[in-house]
Amino acid sequence: MQNFVFYNPTKIIFGRNTIPAIGPETAAWGNKALLVYGSGSIKKNGIHAQVTAALNEAGVEITEHGGVRSNPLLSHVNEGVAKVKEQQLNVIVAVGGGSVLDSAKAISAGAVVEHDVWKFFIGKKTIRQVLPLTTVLTLAASGSEMNSGMVITNDATQEKFGFGNRLLFPKTSILDPEATYSVPPDYTAYGAVDAMSHVLEAYMTTQDPSTPVQDRFMEGLIRNAMDSCDRCLADPRDYQGRADLMWTATLALNGLAAAGLGRVGFPMHMIEHSLSALYNVPHGAGLSAVIPGWLRWQAGRDSRKIKQLGERIFDFKAKGIESSATATIKILENWFGRINSPIRLAELEIPPADIHAIAGNAVRLAKIWRLKEYSRETIEEILYLCR
Amino acid sequence: MQNFVFYNPTKIIFGRNTIPAIGPETAAWGNKALLVYGSGSIKKNGIHAQVTAALNEAGVEITEHGGVRSNPLLSHVNEGVAKVKEQQLNVIVAVGGGSVLDSAKAISAGAVVEHDVWKFFIGKKTIRQVLPLTTVLTLAASGSEMNSGMVITNDATQEKFGFGNRLLFPKTSILDPEATYSVPPDYTAYGAVDAMSHVLEAYMTTQDPSTPVQDRFMEGLIRNAMDSCDRCLADPRDYQGRADLMWTATLALNGLAAAGLGRVGFPMHMIEHSLSALYNVPHGAGLSAVIPGWLRWQAGRDSRKIKQLGERIFDFKAKGIESSATATIKILENWFGRINSPIRLAELEIPPADIHAIAGNAVRLAKIWRLKEYSRETIEEILYLCR
Repeated sequence: MQNFVFYNPTKIIFGRNTIPAIGPETAAWGNKALLVYGSGSIKKNGIHAQVTAALNEAGVEITEHGGVRSNPLLSHVNEGVAKVKEQQLNVIVAVGGGSVLDSAKAISAGAVVEHDVWKFFIGKKTIRQVLPLTTVLTLAASGSEMNSGMVITNDATQEKFGFGNRLLFPKTSILDPEATYSVPPDYTAYGAVDAMSHVLEAYMTTQDPSTPVQDRFMEGLIRNAMDSCDRCLADPRDYQGRADLMWTATLALNGLAAAGLGRVGFPMHMIEHSLSALYNVPHGAGLSAVIPGWLRWQAGRDSRKIKQLGERIFDFKAKGIESSATATIKILENWFGRINSPIRLAELEIPPADIHAIAGNAVRLAKIWRLKEYSRETIEEILYLCR
Repeated sequence: MQNFVFYNPTKIIFGRNTIPAIGPETAAWGNKALLVYGSGSIKKNGIHAQVTAALNEAGVEITEHGGVRSNPLLSHVNEGVAKVKEQQLNVIVAVGGGSVLDSAKAISAGAVVEHDVWKFFIGKKTIRQVLPLTTVLTLAASGSEMNSGMVITNDATQEKFGFGNRLLFPKTSILDPEATYSVPPDYTAYGAVDAMSHVLEAYMTTQDPSTPVQDRFMEGLIRNAMDSCDRCLADPRDYQGRADLMWTATLALNGLAAAGLGRVGFPMHMIEHSLSALYNVPHGAGLSAVIPGWLRWQAGRDSRKIKQLGERIFDFKAKGIESSATATIKILENWFGRINSPIRLAELEIPPADIHAIAGNAVRLAKIWRLKEYSRETIEEILYLCR
């Protein structure tokens, strides 16, 4: 095990009928809120009304900032920053999925500085202060509700970059599984893929069996992402399934699974970010197209961990399957197919001819994330396995 | 899954050569510290010197309060409270295992009130304020380093009671696995049993399969408690084993495994507390004498969860064992035996004739902990299975 510091002060309020808590939880930090949300689905399913009622009840004034899209844009973040500054708001409330929460984090950091937010993402400036953030989660996927990271796409430069700082933990996140009942099947699946991929990136960081505590935790999360997603697709109003998927996604990227593994590299995300930046594919859809190819590439180098994963969670012996990395990858790939998440670039209408250009985009992020072994040629090699 | 609130703001600094961080981590909260520790083993292994040097370096004055014994005493807590008040100390530093940390928590709560600390334990008073606490852990066992609970024995009334409050989380806990190299085999084993029992209590709370995320997490922790303890007993200076056991013990009772399970009852602890209170047996030794009997009693009521545990972590199929609750209990019992932790009351020199009296002691705690199904007769029945 490697040395680590673990610190995660986000308060999680989980369960049925918890959304009204956003009122007092927000009022503890400020009385003039920017309310950040997405395309307006929260107006249809009643969550917007619940949140605004709770905030009003607690004496919190609201300035609206809807319209966050998936793969959220820097330009929209900057509009939010301008509103906060103009109206001297003192707290941010995010209601949505990872894109909304990440936008809200970027706004919370940008609102207290004079320079452009993007400077944080390219390492030109350090976050020293933020506005407090509370959240109501409506999609099980990114884990942003209990971590200190954010991912934003710079629409001017076509770069999708991620960045973290310990000040970015939300103060409180409210996780009501019923708030995800109306998530359609495709985004339910993409969310599960996203959550699973976060664990898989960490799990694949170490190849030797030196992190047994973390390994078993992560193996359980991967299996739970699959099982709970299956339940949600079979019945979108299965509370148990929605609750399991939601908590799995939160635990998948709240720092705990990765604590002790050393630096976790996120190479699958690095490649996917280019797919999202260039083709605006949903993050989870891009990931499931990359994961099997990346795993095959990894199996050619060191297959121990992939094999261990399958042996621990897929019950090979009971099914009479010879345990191997190939069998593990096949089961994962089949599952992606079954939940209708793409397993080939072709399904995303990305032609092989584009691979060189995609690798050129990805290698820029590889440098920023210090993924030294990922040259443009290596990334191309992996992408060819994803065709 | 049940509704829950999860909040755990303790900062963990884990790994080799981390003890000097106690200086700045403590100085952030106060400059006059009460240094709480146990029987003086930290003077022999050099940890006392490291801690005092780090505190001095950071400008923190030290008042010593050694002599905490296992099953820590209220009278000794009260002496610590008196020192803090007399000398107007403003921060508590605990260096030791669970007994030391729990004593320090009780002192941190008692130092800011005029009434006796025991009133918190019997529900007569509520904690509203505490002095900040930092810790250096020297025993993998109780989980006190990352939770808000404490257990103290009232030497006047022979009651060993536990109690929790969200203000009791340590601000920072330093976990250096090398600090546990000198823990002797018996206490290494008792610590592993303690950690495992915390998970087992939570795991056995729900019998239906409604907490799959938590279940897999807990199954992993139970298996890791066993594997890592075996490594530590084979080689007390096995860094990997010590690190795995330490982190397992912390995760076993930091609130995460239990989040979503509803109220966790701790019936095995309830019974063990009476053994410790009446016979001063080490907590882990008392637990391993109670666990197999309690599990047999539970198997007679509902064996599903015990069977699931064995199937998931003991690889019955590979060993050609018919999976059952009985087989699971037998494997656990054999393991307790192998690590020389008692599996019968007789090994603790507690005669069957005492069972009636022990149950009489235990049922007092059952009432305080609201374990309604545990009458004196039921506790006697379980204790007879532990003979």
